[in-house]
Amino acid sequence: MITAKARAVDGSDQPFRTAEIERRDLDVHDVLIEIKYAGICHSDIHTAHGDWGEVDFPLVPGHEIAGIVTDVGAEVTKYKVGDRVGVGCMVDSCGECENCRKGEEQYCLKGNVPTYAGVDKYGEPTQGGYSTHIVVTEDFVLRIPDNIGLDVAAPLLCAGITTFSPLNHWNAGPGKKVAIVGMGGLGHMAVQIAHAMGAEVSVLSRTLNKEEDGLQFGAEGYYATTDPETFTKLAGSFDLIINTVSAQIDMNAYLSLLTLDGTLVNVGAPPEPLSVHAFSLIPQRRSFAGSLIGGIRETQEMLDFCAEHNAVPKIEVISADEIDEAYERVLASDVKYRFVIDTSTM
Amino acid sequence: MITAKARAVDGSDQPFRTAEIERRDLDVHDVLIEIKYAGICHSDIHTAHGDWGEVDFPLVPGHEIAGIVTDVGAEVTKYKVGDRVGVGCMVDSCGECENCRKGEEQYCLKGNVPTYAGVDKYGEPTQGGYSTHIVVTEDFVLRIPDNIGLDVAAPLLCAGITTFSPLNHWNAGPGKKVAIVGMGGLGHMAVQIAHAMGAEVSVLSRTLNKEEDGLQFGAEGYYATTDPETFTKLAGSFDLIINTVSAQIDMNAYLSLLTLDGTLVNVGAPPEPLSVHAFSLIPQRRSFAGSLIGGIRETQEMLDFCAEHNAVPKIEVISADEIDEAYERVLASDVKYRFVIDTSTM
Repeated sequence: MITAKARAVDGSDQPFRTAEIERRDLDVHDVLIEIKYAGICHSDIHTAHGDWGEVDFPLVPGHEIAGIVTDVGAEVTKYKVGDRVGVGCMVDSCGECENCRKGEEQYCLKGNVPTYAGVDKYGEPTQGGYSTHIVVTEDFVLRIPDNIGLDVAAPLLCAGITTFSPLNHWNAGPGKKVAIVGMGGLGHMAVQIAHAMGAEVSVLSRTLNKEEDGLQFGAEGYYATTDPETFTKLAGSFDLIINTVSAQIDMNAYLSLLTLDGTLVNVGAPPEPLSVHAFSLIPQRRSFAGSLIGGIRETQEMLDFCAEHNAVPKIEVISADEIDEAYERVLASDVKYRFVIDTSTM
Repeated sequence: MITAKARAVDGSDQPFRTAEIERRDLDVHDVLIEIKYAGICHSDIHTAHGDWGEVDFPLVPGHEIAGIVTDVGAEVTKYKVGDRVGVGCMVDSCGECENCRKGEEQYCLKGNVPTYAGVDKYGEPTQGGYSTHIVVTEDFVLRIPDNIGLDVAAPLLCAGITTFSPLNHWNAGPGKKVAIVGMGGLGHMAVQIAHAMGAEVSVLSRTLNKEEDGLQFGAEGYYATTDPETFTKLAGSFDLIINTVSAQIDMNAYLSLLTLDGTLVNVGAPPEPLSVHAFSLIPQRRSFAGSLIGGIRETQEMLDFCAEHNAVPKIEVISADEIDEAYERVLASDVKYRFVIDTSTM
C-alpha cells in the first residue's frame, strides 16, 4: 500500500481535516501519480453535502487532478516516470459494453467508476484528488500538453471536458450561434472553447458584473437574464445553448431563445425536476438535452485543443487549509473562476 | 365568392350545426377543391373546445382534407381540374423567412396560416375541411397518389405527416429501435411508417387491448405501460421514442427507456408543462424534443412513401351528422383508428 496525505470530510456538515489514505499497490497497468494540483468543482460540494444522495464518509473529493507520474506498473505502455498527466471524473469502466467500446466510457452501461465516492473493481471505495498521490489504471490517465501549466490544466479535467463534449457533439463551430448560461467555473471554459471552435458566442448571466471578462474570453454578446428584454430581444437566436447553472431556472424562457432545430444542453443538474412545456419544443423542433463529461479519447482531444488555443481556466490557487472557505465562496459565487488546491500544502 | 356547405360549431360547448360558408374567388395561384373526405383529428377537438386558447366562432374545423380539383386560377401550373389532391394543417406561410426557404413552412417565423382558426393573407378567418369546398394556393396543395383511396389519404395529411416527419428527421430506419407511445390516430400511423422505414418498432400502450392490431401494423413488440415491469425490462432500449399521447405521462420513466444519444419526441401536446429531471437526460446524453407536422415538400414525400408501402390509416367513415358523437368517442379512445367524414353527406 502507498500512503498519501489528503484532506477528508467526515460528514455532510463537517469541515475538512488532514488525513492519511492508502492507495493500492500498482497493478500491472497502474500509474502512480504525484498530484500537484486539484481543482474544486461544484460537484465536490454537492457530493460532500449529500445533495445528490448519501455517500460514505470519510470522503476525499476532487476530480480535477494534474500531476507527475512517479511510478508505473510492469505492463504500462502509455506513460513513463516524469510524464505530466491528469485524471478527471472517472478512473475506470467495464471496457466491454457498447458505450465503452464506442469510447464513451462516461456512459458505461455498468456505470463508470467515479474518481471519488465510488467503488473500484477491487471493491474498495475511491478517494479523489484532494491528496498527494493517486493510483489509476493507464487507460484513464490523460496526457497534459507541455505548453499549459499543471495548475490551469487541472480544471480542464472536469470543467473543460463537461463543456467541450456537448459543444463538440452538437457541432459548435463557424456559422453557429452558441449561448452559454452562467459564467462560473464551467461557463467561463464554455465561452473560451466555443469561441475557439469558431462559433459566435453569447453569455446569458444574471447580471452584467462579469461582462468584461466574458468579452475577453471571446463572447460577442453578454446579456443579463434579470432583464426581461433579454428574452424578447434574443428570441429564436441560438443554435445551441449550454446551461451550466445547477439552480432552477425558467427552462421555457431559455428554450424560446433557440432557433429551428436548436438544442439546449444541461450540464448543470438541479436536484429538482425541471418544468418543460411541450409547446416550448414543438413549434421550432427544439431539443432539451443533457450531457455528462466526455469519454477518455475526447478528453485527450479537449486537452490538446485547449492547449493549442490557449483556452485555459482563470484560477485562484489556494492551500489545503483553505478548502472550507473556498466551498463557502463557491456557494456564494465568489470565485473567478475556479479554485485550485496546491497539494504541496497538504 | 364560392358558397360551400359546412359543419360549424358556435362555441366551445356547442354541438355542430349545418352552415354555409364563403370561399374566396380564385386568385391566380389558387386551386378550388371539392372535398370528398375530411379526417377528425384530436386537434380539432382541442381547438373547438378551447383547450389551446380562445378561438373565434363560428368555427369549421378539419385539416385532413382529400378531394378533387374542380377549378384553378389563371397561373396555376401544378394542378389541373380532376387531379386528386389533399390539404393538411396549413394553407399558407410567408414564403420568405429562413425556415420557409428551407422548405420547413410549418415553422414559418411569421407563423404559418393554419387551415382553420387562422387568418389568411387577405385578413379573413380560415375555415377547415368539414366542408364541401376549399380554396388553397397551389403551393400548399398536395398530390394524392393514384393507388390510395381519398378516404384513407385524408388522415395522412395530419396523422401521417406528424409522425413521418420526426421519424424521418431522427433517422428511423434499419438498425434503429423505435418505440411509439400510444396507438391512436397518430400512433397507428407511426407504427406503420416506422416499420416501412425499416426500423424495429415497439408499441407502448396503456393496455394490451390493441396488441393484435399493433403487430399487424408491423410492431415487433407491444408493451403495457400500466405494468411497471415494462419500464425495467425495456430500460435503455430505444434509439427513438415518438410520444403521440397528449395527456400527462411520466416523462422521466419514458426517458429512461432511451439508449445513448436517444431522443424522445413529443408530437402530442398536453396543455400543462411536463416534469423532466436533468438526471433523466444527462447520464446517457438523451434528448427530449418536439416536432410539428412537416413541410410541404416532406408532406408530399410522406404521401408517396405511404402509398408505396401501403401505410394507410384504418378508418371509420361517418356522415356529417355524426361529428358530435365521433368527438365523444375520440375523447373516450373509442375509435379504430380515425374517423373520416364523408363530405357528400354535408
